[in-house]
Amino acid sequence: MSVVRIGLCQMPVSEDKGENLAAAESMIARAAEQGADFAVLPEMFVCPFQNHLFRPAAEEPEGPTVRFLSGLARKHGIYLVGGSLPELEGGEVYNTGYLFGREGQILAKHRKMHLFDAVLNDSTVCQESAVIRAGDKVTVADTEFGPVGLAICFDVRFAELFRLMGLRGARIIFLPAAFNLTTGPAHWDITLRMRALDQQCYVAACAPALDMACGYHSYGHSAITGPSGEVLVRQGQEPGVTVTEVELDKIDRDRQVLPILRSRRTDLYDTVYKGQ
Amino acid sequence: MSVVRIGLCQMPVSEDKGENLAAAESMIARAAEQGADFAVLPEMFVCPFQNHLFRPAAEEPEGPTVRFLSGLARKHGIYLVGGSLPELEGGEVYNTGYLFGREGQILAKHRKMHLFDAVLNDSTVCQESAVIRAGDKVTVADTEFGPVGLAICFDVRFAELFRLMGLRGARIIFLPAAFNLTTGPAHWDITLRMRALDQQCYVAACAPALDMACGYHSYGHSAITGPSGEVLVRQGQEPGVTVTEVELDKIDRDRQVLPILRSRRTDLYDTVYKGQ
Repeated sequence: MSVVRIGLCQMPVSEDKGENLAAAESMIARAAEQGADFAVLPEMFVCPFQNHLFRPAAEEPEGPTVRFLSGLARKHGIYLVGGSLPELEGGEVYNTGYLFGREGQILAKHRKMHLFDAVLNDSTVCQESAVIRAGDKVTVADTEFGPVGLAICFDVRFAELFRLMGLRGARIIFLPAAFNLTTGPAHWDITLRMRALDQQCYVAACAPALDMACGYHSYGHSAITGPSGEVLVRQGQEPGVTVTEVELDKIDRDRQVLPILRSRRTDLYDTVYKGQ
Repeated sequence: MSVVRIGLCQMPVSEDKGENLAAAESMIARAAEQGADFAVLPEMFVCPFQNHLFRPAAEEPEGPTVRFLSGLARKHGIYLVGGSLPELEGGEVYNTGYLFGREGQILAKHRKMHLFDAVLNDSTVCQESAVIRAGDKVTVADTEFGPVGLAICFDVRFAELFRLMGLRGARIIFLPAAFNLTTGPAHWDITLRMRALDQQCYVAACAPALDMACGYHSYGHSAITGPSGEVLVRQGQEPGVTVTEVELDKIDRDRQVLPILRSRRTDLYDTVYKGQ
């Protein structure tokens, strides 16, 4: 199938988990009404991106929020990229995203592989690694539209991970994310565009809406970028749902016209995965 | 030393080799007068980027043009990135760039590793590989400012090559190039910015000026990008010399604030070089 409709659900995220689940439910419904094949939620859509909130909001694998999302995918008959939420397993908390199929089945689960440790300014230091444990898998799953990849926020900083998803055939890479008001203006746009261009595929990134009253200020700007680095849609910072038609055949046309992937000198170098 | 002055010599390139050498000489002198530590020439500065012109313009290694450039570096006491020119060896033609030291000595020589084969539009097909043989080395050389990398034009499309230069310590990557009026507007800016951001280093790219009367239409827009993906200087399409101060310490500060390189999961993946 050549055209896929991707709904980006740029939802507000508060400290009230029930409110967040209701917002997700409502936005997913709006995306489905507009014909979305995929609905995408942001990173950490059950609580703001703040270290002290992760463990209280965490759930066991396939806990209530995962079952809730599964039910929404099945109800609407859509693929659902369930953003991410804190997942508790063996006493450790992971930043975990799920891809559900149209029947609500779990097609893939990605644990954020690169944790966000950064000094944003004199007063703000992020150290996700203090409370979150990193995953160790590259995540690509089959769908009726071909293979799709799944990564989370800071993962996008790493050319190797995106190359590995591309080499496994990912034609769309979903990126629940939550860049902030420092890194967003500086890096969000060029990073999303270049990761798509490097793989000559699509990247669909969804972030929380900006809420200046929230303890974490999300940059928003959920966007889809294409195989020539083009921007198909870019939201602002307000809450909103966009459903965008993505033409998958353009991937093959672009690769024919400008054969970047075919021109890689794998006789001289390669990107290798050492995990399982 | 923390500040390096980089002069980008966005020169016109015609089919008259003598004219091109005179333009290069003049622009290098202007860069030196303005205090440049490095002067950078464009890709294929001795002839337009057209297949039928490469072999006629080709010279043996360390031929007259290389000796001419060496003399200019020594005369002005500057480092010179001698763009690239067709190099003839063993009956093969390479697209070869040189880095000269302040005494005129050859510090590095890079043969373009990725050749530009692309369908630009219905009437224009580029097939550099029909006449040029590709190189097989990653090129990083030591200078008084630390290690610097050297790549040529289409090489910039490949995240792996830039990662390998970064891993070898390159703090500035020089890129003689000649993007065109199709790929330039689409990809030049984000590619230069993202390659710098990915390595948290500087990229200094120099292209020929646009000449619509020439058989190849260069995009121009010679530019320097920095470790946060910022643009330090960006020329237009006219001939021109810019000398820009580049603060090398910013590399270390940016890497401290946003530790992208340190956060790579080399326990799980890596970029490997298979050559010698």
